[in-house]
Amino acid sequence: MIPLRGMPELREGDSLAVELLRAAERVGGFEGGDVLVVAQKAVSKVEGEVVRLADVEPSDRARELAGGGDPRRMEVILRETKSIVRTRPPLVISETAHGFVCASAGVDSSNAGRPETLVLLPRDPDASASRLREALRDATGVDMAVIVSDSFGRAWRQGTTDVALGISGLAPILDLNGQRDSVGYELHATQIAVADEIAGAAELVMGKVDGIPAAIVRGLTLSGEGSGVDLLMPPDRDLFR
Amino acid sequence: MIPLRGMPELREGDSLAVELLRAAERVGGFEGGDVLVVAQKAVSKVEGEVVRLADVEPSDRARELAGGGDPRRMEVILRETKSIVRTRPPLVISETAHGFVCASAGVDSSNAGRPETLVLLPRDPDASASRLREALRDATGVDMAVIVSDSFGRAWRQGTTDVALGISGLAPILDLNGQRDSVGYELHATQIAVADEIAGAAELVMGKVDGIPAAIVRGLTLSGEGSGVDLLMPPDRDLFR
Repeated sequence: MIPLRGMPELREGDSLAVELLRAAERVGGFEGGDVLVVAQKAVSKVEGEVVRLADVEPSDRARELAGGGDPRRMEVILRETKSIVRTRPPLVISETAHGFVCASAGVDSSNAGRPETLVLLPRDPDASASRLREALRDATGVDMAVIVSDSFGRAWRQGTTDVALGISGLAPILDLNGQRDSVGYELHATQIAVADEIAGAAELVMGKVDGIPAAIVRGLTLSGEGSGVDLLMPPDRDLFR
Repeated sequence: MIPLRGMPELREGDSLAVELLRAAERVGGFEGGDVLVVAQKAVSKVEGEVVRLADVEPSDRARELAGGGDPRRMEVILRETKSIVRTRPPLVISETAHGFVCASAGVDSSNAGRPETLVLLPRDPDASASRLREALRDATGVDMAVIVSDSFGRAWRQGTTDVALGISGLAPILDLNGQRDSVGYELHATQIAVADEIAGAAELVMGKVDGIPAAIVRGLTLSGEGSGVDLLMPPDRDLFR
């Protein structure tokens, strides 16, 4: 796990690929087979998925759900919400248009560059990952996998872990169904969410307060292709909505 | 992340510490500040938390919930279950006596050493982690942190990720409340479940089919003390039971 330090504060229109390249060069550059994990916030900022609180007029519903919080922030959360899974004001667990289930529909104010802005999730995190992968391949000739990650809470457990929202160049689930373990017993229904584990591993060296928005995870032997959508439990199989 | 390869199939009464030491010596030994992640199954096997299916008489309730599965396996799951959180036969999501919420109360048949046995969770995973840490410190003079890990499914997302059940020598949650991020904005309610991210990172090099029951995660700057219980959401704050 190699943190990519020293990246500048990002703004809409900046080339994230160029900044990632510069940061990677300081640690010896990318290598084939690397997994590059980039925090969603960096992606959303360069893609302009930022809302100024001053521009938001809260609805009555937003005022009601905001509890003691800022109703303009709740208004933005509701706009990003396809359906509310649970609510206990000012906490909202949303399903987003992408299908992610997470607190506040992924809307975040920390690290936003200014206190008075909110950062939304990328519109299409898989497309963001693909664009970054292609730009880095074009610039370096190195093919790597890219994960766009974010910190999500979990049911039943405290704290957040980073998970993969968007993916390019990697099968997010390692499916061991039908394989036999070391004593010859067939494994049933063992599907490992490796992309989420990689995102979480990268978080350990990125940190929230250090302004490190990306890390390389090197040395894994993974392959395949896939999408962040592959990690979403289909609603008809989901016991927790 | 350094996998500890070549460990033998473990049985009740084996010294897990001795086997871990031997495996670690093959990769240069332990270092101060290492986090040793050990799969729950290895711990449970040496602690004798194994049930022979032939010894189990299923109850009517177990037959009812088993669906097409083995009612003896369901009987063992029910014995390990404090309360059923959700069920869709043959799937049961349980709260265990420890307070973990997971599929099948953590009862597992794969990697059990023989097809006709089931492996339960350790009775007290924190105590298991502490004993291992002390035994390794006594043998080597090196103080490391120990995590006893298992693969848990998640609400809303496909696949399992490894999480920390038992912990010694590590604060499982990195609490950034009140810290300021790189642009001076105060972070609210940012608690990172680093112990779960470390367990997941270790899983990436352990694998389910390779018979690698442990890995070292080296190079993190973590500290503190804590318990696997710190990672459990208190029921009164939990929106998903």
